[in-house]
Amino acid sequence: MEKALLQAYAKTAVQVGIGLKKGQTLMIAAPIEAAEFARLCALEAYLAGARDVVMRWSDEQFSRIRYQHASEQALCDVKPWQLQSYLDYVKAPGGVAILNILAQDPQAFLGLDLAKIDKASAAVRRALAPWREYTMNDRVAWSIVAVPSRGWARKVFGDTADAEEKLWNAIFKVCRMDAPDPVQAWEEQTAFLARRRDQLNAMELTALHFTSQNGTDLTIGLADTARWEGAKSTTPDGQAFLANLPTEEIFTAPHKEKTEGVVYASRPYVYHGDLIEGLWLRFEKGRVVEYGAKKNQKLLCMLLDTDEGSRSLGEVALVPRQSPINQSGILFYNTLFDENAACHIALGDGYPSTVQGGTALSQEKLEQLGLNHSLVHEDIMIGTEDLRIDGIRRGEGTVAVFRDGGWAF
Amino acid sequence: MEKALLQAYAKTAVQVGIGLKKGQTLMIAAPIEAAEFARLCALEAYLAGARDVVMRWSDEQFSRIRYQHASEQALCDVKPWQLQSYLDYVKAPGGVAILNILAQDPQAFLGLDLAKIDKASAAVRRALAPWREYTMNDRVAWSIVAVPSRGWARKVFGDTADAEEKLWNAIFKVCRMDAPDPVQAWEEQTAFLARRRDQLNAMELTALHFTSQNGTDLTIGLADTARWEGAKSTTPDGQAFLANLPTEEIFTAPHKEKTEGVVYASRPYVYHGDLIEGLWLRFEKGRVVEYGAKKNQKLLCMLLDTDEGSRSLGEVALVPRQSPINQSGILFYNTLFDENAACHIALGDGYPSTVQGGTALSQEKLEQLGLNHSLVHEDIMIGTEDLRIDGIRRGEGTVAVFRDGGWAF
Repeated sequence: MEKALLQAYAKTAVQVGIGLKKGQTLMIAAPIEAAEFARLCALEAYLAGARDVVMRWSDEQFSRIRYQHASEQALCDVKPWQLQSYLDYVKAPGGVAILNILAQDPQAFLGLDLAKIDKASAAVRRALAPWREYTMNDRVAWSIVAVPSRGWARKVFGDTADAEEKLWNAIFKVCRMDAPDPVQAWEEQTAFLARRRDQLNAMELTALHFTSQNGTDLTIGLADTARWEGAKSTTPDGQAFLANLPTEEIFTAPHKEKTEGVVYASRPYVYHGDLIEGLWLRFEKGRVVEYGAKKNQKLLCMLLDTDEGSRSLGEVALVPRQSPINQSGILFYNTLFDENAACHIALGDGYPSTVQGGTALSQEKLEQLGLNHSLVHEDIMIGTEDLRIDGIRRGEGTVAVFRDGGWAF
Repeated sequence: MEKALLQAYAKTAVQVGIGLKKGQTLMIAAPIEAAEFARLCALEAYLAGARDVVMRWSDEQFSRIRYQHASEQALCDVKPWQLQSYLDYVKAPGGVAILNILAQDPQAFLGLDLAKIDKASAAVRRALAPWREYTMNDRVAWSIVAVPSRGWARKVFGDTADAEEKLWNAIFKVCRMDAPDPVQAWEEQTAFLARRRDQLNAMELTALHFTSQNGTDLTIGLADTARWEGAKSTTPDGQAFLANLPTEEIFTAPHKEKTEGVVYASRPYVYHGDLIEGLWLRFEKGRVVEYGAKKNQKLLCMLLDTDEGSRSLGEVALVPRQSPINQSGILFYNTLFDENAACHIALGDGYPSTVQGGTALSQEKLEQLGLNHSLVHEDIMIGTEDLRIDGIRRGEGTVAVFRDGGWAF
């Protein structure tokens, strides 16, 4: 990939994604396959005035060896330094932010013992829960961007010599890197999303009713004091950041006990390095009571059984079918992109920022408002070309939110 | 590089270098450029019964960006998790061992502010000193192996397309990977070194007198109760390991106050990612009182000024000119190889194992015996083709140790 474009992408990640502040420490979590881009992000961070950059390398190929050969006991033995390696920076001079670079192979762990991986992942999530509080509550700026890896590119474009180049081009397109000034293009996009968000907040919705010819008939009751979020988030210190690059979604908090009906996933979903396809869920009183999948139902079962909160919803997000990512016609096999191509719901943890004043509330208070809590937060794409969403308003009838898969207003 | 050879090399590193025990945790410190080999080492470790493998990635190219752009204050701000990330494994079930994979570019930091790098390195060494106690005292098994990187290969063989392949071949040759059974070949080599070590110990030497036509005229008084080590080291639990692969040296502890005379380095020396060439040192009462270098004298000065102990010797090692590494005629620009091509002395920290019962002695006791202590331990090659070493024996005259650069007995 052309270096100038890569540099511009790194600059966009640091300036728009993180909104890096002078004197701040930036953690970059990156797979070693993405080293070239990670280094450029580090350089852009220093050029933007970072105090320091901390690189956190990972390697899926090593993880695969480890998952294959280490015992469940060893995999679940998460040492104290792993949490410490995040928390040590929370009080760093100038504060900390974290940029996650993804380059996953959607089937990195194909054929492995997924139950073992599930337990290992849960152990890591449990151990890192105190750090997760910082990102889930927007106490630190965080952002996720992606670059191609060989395995990923081949899954998307087939085993051809130019698969990686094609994936680069697709990512650059949906990340608006073809705009004359990508940073400016994202300012415009986030301003647009902010207007949609404000319109939705003004509607005072208490529930959403999703219907589609694919069989979906789902009513999601929203948390008490739920508020719509979209585009930029803000830390308590006022640092505006874009948690996902690209982002096309407006999202809010379901009430964990108020979802009813059936929903069919419209895209496959990657979990633990493998694909769940043809997934459906039936909810009663907010919880999944019945479910199925054409492929990897066992993996779906593991996800649902993670903990008390993994059978309820933590997020509902609206993305019109006009989203550039959907328009690209590409199935990315990567949640960062696929969730921004279609409306989605997330099983698991809710974002405190999606209830009124939520980032300052205790866990107990949040749960009283109906916000779900879990170790997982996994997006499932449900948007279709004919999706219809009716909003149920506080006290006074319904309002058309989506018609034919796009905004109705 | 052919995969079967790489695998054999990984197996040699894990079985001979570390002597991995079943149920042990292996830390692998590896530059991301050496990922393929690091993964093979991880796999070999699991196959040999490791409980788990912990990968510690690093990246010189990122380090270069960081050294260039971060302030000295930021670079010296070493967080507690960094030490913790080692110590957390000390009490792991089955114990821990550490394999260091090198792939350094000898001039990775060329042109940077080396004084800043020096301070940053010293800060890291200070912070990690409690972990260093474990390796310096052989309380955990540790080993160092190397694989080519592009920058390193080009420094050794010039900017040609096959430089990396040439360096692989050179490394494999001196690591005896061309033997029918490399593991067996190393058992034989270490048995040979052990015999030399025993012969030297039987001589009861109190000092060594080095002379060469290059101007070297150096007398190194040995520490009280100094004992020669070579080939395998052993942990308190009885795990035999080979700290360097390859290894051709027999070494012992100088007395920190008893070196006198002048010594000229016979090979350039890499420090802080740059080369010191044409180096000489003059000692009085064990300390460097005068010194010079044809290139990068400033860097030598930094090394000598690190701390109280960095002007005295912590090791003297004997390597005959017949060493396969010297015979290869290759200047590796990497201490792991170059120190095994020629006799060398180390400025800085001494190995407790090189005085009688030293790994069980307190720091105070060790210093009373004359063992040097420092944050650094830096090998300087002094062996020449005409090197003569006379050993001064306890009470009764001298004995020929080296003649014409090789063993005299």
